Amino acid sequence: MRQTNRPDRSEPPAVDASRAAATRGAIMAVAERLFRSMGYQKTTVADIAREMSMSPANVYRFFPSKLAINEAICNQVLGGYADALWAVARGAGAAPDRLRALFLTAHRQSMALFFQDKRLHDMVDVAMAQHWSVIEGFIAQWKGAIRHIIMDGQRAGDFAGLPPDEIAMLVHSTMIGFSNPTLISQCADDDLQALAVNMAEFVLRALRP
Amino acid sequence: MRQTNRPDRSEPPAVDASRAAATRGAIMAVAERLFRSMGYQKTTVADIAREMSMSPANVYRFFPSKLAINEAICNQVLGGYADALWAVARGAGAAPDRLRALFLTAHRQSMALFFQDKRLHDMVDVAMAQHWSVIEGFIAQWKGAIRHIIMDGQRAGDFAGLPPDEIAMLVHSTMIGFSNPTLISQCADDDLQALAVNMAEFVLRALRP
Repeated sequence: MRQTNRPDRSEPPAVDASRAAATRGAIMAVAERLFRSMGYQKTTVADIAREMSMSPANVYRFFPSKLAINEAICNQVLGGYADALWAVARGAGAAPDRLRALFLTAHRQSMALFFQDKRLHDMVDVAMAQHWSVIEGFIAQWKGAIRHIIMDGQRAGDFAGLPPDEIAMLVHSTMIGFSNPTLISQCADDDLQALAVNMAEFVLRALRP
Repeated sequence: MRQTNRPDRSEPPAVDASRAAATRGAIMAVAERLFRSMGYQKTTVADIAREMSMSPANVYRFFPSKLAINEAICNQVLGGYADALWAVARGAGAAPDRLRALFLTAHRQSMALFFQDKRLHDMVDVAMAQHWSVIEGFIAQWKGAIRHIIMDGQRAGDFAGLPPDEIAMLVHSTMIGFSNPTLISQCADDDLQALAVNMAEFVLRALRP
């Protein structure tokens, strides 16, 4: 609406914005590697700067703190997880089959990200304590993907007409045992996969009209 | 079989055994108070001994380590929790009502024990890391109480004839979200109680014949 022919002087030129995004991405990649190899607590912003041949002050131009870098990484990691859930929810097939696939996808994503990866686990622990909004946003995405499948199944007559938001919350809660980072680090994978498969069938029984 | 009229010299007289049990109980009570007020990590066996006007060496006659005292306390705390679950499972009423009551009991026990009690939470964290067998025994009791209700409901024709052990495992897993110490410390109580109530109804739908 307020477009003019003159360049908007309050915004940096596009080429700088994309360069800044690239630098932010590079800082995140280096930080993630260091967090995973040295551990989150032991890595300093000075370590990250040294790896990038930058000054710490230069890193701080892009992220105000180590916590902010971790927040951005967690956002990225959990964004990939949420994308995988939505791909299943919006995929082909009947709603019951998509729900089964969603249970297995959550199990696999969690195993790939958190199982026996103590370092990444530490990063997520920090995220859960310090930037709860990142986790909350992720869980909202997860419940949204479940809700999408529930409503498709209700339209097709596969599922009972229960309130979709409440059911999405309950179904999400049945998935905690095989996907929560803290819980799965204490179990054997075979047991967890069986739990995911059997829980999907149990939930489908509850959703019967 | 090997009873004789002579006292068994390998065992201390009964009066000493009960005195030893009383001392163990007193050490546990003092230790629990200190763990809760100072925190588990900061409390030493010397602190516990001083509170009891005993020497540390005397405390070590009853427990080999601080970890062993914590293990005994956790066993006691979780034993009380399991007793509450079994009281519901073996109580009066139809199986569906007992299952509803079991969900609420687990929620209330967990809230009373773990919610906002960061100190006790630390003790349980240590237990989960160091004496997993205590936690495992507790979860086996919990699943046993669920299984008891499931089998009663199956006999009465209230529940479908699904394999009781598998179903008990699944039902236990649906209860994690409102009872696990780590998870409930991050939520509001109202939400958790609603989750317990609604999850019970959802599980009863799954158990329909």
